[in-house]
Amino acid sequence: MRLLHPQNVEDIALGAAVLGTGGGGDPYLGKLMALQAMREHGPVPLLTLDEIGDDDLIVPSAAMGAPTVLIEKLPQGDEVLHAFRALEAYLGKPAKATMPIEAGGLNSTIPIMVAARLGLPLVDCDGMGRAFPEVQMVTHTLYGIGATPMAMADEKGNSVILNTINNRWAETFARSITVDMGATALIAVCSVTGRQLKEAAISGTTTLCETIGRTIRQAREDKRDVVEAVRQVVGGFRLFHGKVVDVQRRTETGFAKGEATLEGIAEDAGRRLVIHFQNEHLIAMVDGEMVASVPDLITALDSDSGEPVTTEGLRYGFRVVVLGIPCNEKWRTLAGLAIVGPRYFGYDIDYRPVENRFGL
Amino acid sequence: MRLLHPQNVEDIALGAAVLGTGGGGDPYLGKLMALQAMREHGPVPLLTLDEIGDDDLIVPSAAMGAPTVLIEKLPQGDEVLHAFRALEAYLGKPAKATMPIEAGGLNSTIPIMVAARLGLPLVDCDGMGRAFPEVQMVTHTLYGIGATPMAMADEKGNSVILNTINNRWAETFARSITVDMGATALIAVCSVTGRQLKEAAISGTTTLCETIGRTIRQAREDKRDVVEAVRQVVGGFRLFHGKVVDVQRRTETGFAKGEATLEGIAEDAGRRLVIHFQNEHLIAMVDGEMVASVPDLITALDSDSGEPVTTEGLRYGFRVVVLGIPCNEKWRTLAGLAIVGPRYFGYDIDYRPVENRFGL
Repeated sequence: MRLLHPQNVEDIALGAAVLGTGGGGDPYLGKLMALQAMREHGPVPLLTLDEIGDDDLIVPSAAMGAPTVLIEKLPQGDEVLHAFRALEAYLGKPAKATMPIEAGGLNSTIPIMVAARLGLPLVDCDGMGRAFPEVQMVTHTLYGIGATPMAMADEKGNSVILNTINNRWAETFARSITVDMGATALIAVCSVTGRQLKEAAISGTTTLCETIGRTIRQAREDKRDVVEAVRQVVGGFRLFHGKVVDVQRRTETGFAKGEATLEGIAEDAGRRLVIHFQNEHLIAMVDGEMVASVPDLITALDSDSGEPVTTEGLRYGFRVVVLGIPCNEKWRTLAGLAIVGPRYFGYDIDYRPVENRFGL
Repeated sequence: MRLLHPQNVEDIALGAAVLGTGGGGDPYLGKLMALQAMREHGPVPLLTLDEIGDDDLIVPSAAMGAPTVLIEKLPQGDEVLHAFRALEAYLGKPAKATMPIEAGGLNSTIPIMVAARLGLPLVDCDGMGRAFPEVQMVTHTLYGIGATPMAMADEKGNSVILNTINNRWAETFARSITVDMGATALIAVCSVTGRQLKEAAISGTTTLCETIGRTIRQAREDKRDVVEAVRQVVGGFRLFHGKVVDVQRRTETGFAKGEATLEGIAEDAGRRLVIHFQNEHLIAMVDGEMVASVPDLITALDSDSGEPVTTEGLRYGFRVVVLGIPCNEKWRTLAGLAIVGPRYFGYDIDYRPVENRFGL
């Protein structure tokens, strides 16, 4: 157990946006909410998976919806507590801890806010090791753990409890309700026992986010190459260096979908990168050839500051380096690729681990 | 208290379709489900409002969705029990009785099936005195009673609990989930205490359905004019006698919407009636002039057999008499017209009680 203090939260939010691969929400917003809660309620205990009891109830907390809408329709903070408590009441059992369900600017820090406000510890893990756009895309699904009972709440005071036969149905219902709630909802989902979590979760995600964020901060302070420092700490590969020349963006069925086009700079001059996204970056194509795809991470970093750029922040003229980062091994199984591989998202291409392109 | 036997169910289903004003589901299907349950579990006690305790929990049960889909995707019967039990579990209290939320071929008989299978009595009342297409269109809304907590279930085993700040939001969420569930869902909604129900409900609806159904049956046996017998027993008015020449029908946002056009026969020769419907008949226009509108009832009866014709049963060549029937007084208040008057459905016309056209 260690305590998370405000500086840790700053680092976590920044690093989480790297693993958010363009999605997972705005890191600035999430950071403010967590810091505010910490100011009022003190630091938050962070537990490793080993430190939780086998029979403890762990309830992840998160935001769901289109990040493009979330940055304009800010959560107040109470909605997620409303969802959290609704799920506890439904389960008839209090949670012993909360955790992030994904790594992302907002979704790594919302659980810190929940933990602070409810006086609970945070578990150092998540269900994706990155961000993905849909509810069923959690390692829990690979271990037969239900996303439901799942609670959803909005800022108006509405709430919903879902109970579905599989996690794909949870996504279907939850997406419709999210759209009705105004394209964003706050949720408590994938509740598990400690025993289940130790098997199903991706361990150490919050600490990894923090390490990445601290790396960015220290590289900036030392005037080192921030992008290179990030690349090293995440074990990633430089896919492209370019300038954003076009972003097509639409809010569709509750998602932020679109394509960003970049023209190459320096070593990539004369080449063209297209990133397809659905909340998160899904596929990166250079001159029509796929260079990285889900479930590997595709992350755009500002080429000067190393700041991770979310899909909703991508704008004409931004100069970025795009990194490809190997995903967690759990996603590289047949079962994993079936739910988060490129074909699930409608791309008729085989997954090829990003490191293979680099002779590894 | 009296017992409902199979013959009562036959009459109720038939009469309910008259009050269903084209919607409320197929009477044949509902009747079969109730009769089957009664064969297995015996007759069902019918209680008047006076006979229920002030603190008794009463949970209405119903089907929701597009009737056009319901006749092809038949409920198995278990879904509604699933919804009913999910709501009881959520409330942490067993229901003392069930009741219909609306009068309609299917929705007057589903609660009889639920009552038979769960060994509960049925309360002789409903929340509309007819059928309406949306969740918030219940007299409960006029008395500040929530439609939620509301449980929904499908044939696959999925269920949802809604908790909304008002009944319009319950409709919004429930409609989306209904569409996701395949355009039909089974629900437990508008649960109340006996005390609330005595104030808010429309009393005696099941008995009225039965009386109408028995009237049709006996008029047929006696070879009397069935349509005229129905008109008398419901206190209605003949709006039009005609032949169906066109039906435009579409399943849209989970509703069966459309328009039926009739050419006049006999006393109405040379005139043309258009009925606009959204599950239920909403507006009747003769030669462009409104002759009846929600909340009054617009019911089409086969001109020979007196059989009520649902919107999904309307077909080219059918000869029908269209009756206008005054609605319950609760709907004729300003508050009532705000939620079920013609303007709510997008028609820029004032409500005019149907009897006023007949000099009453």
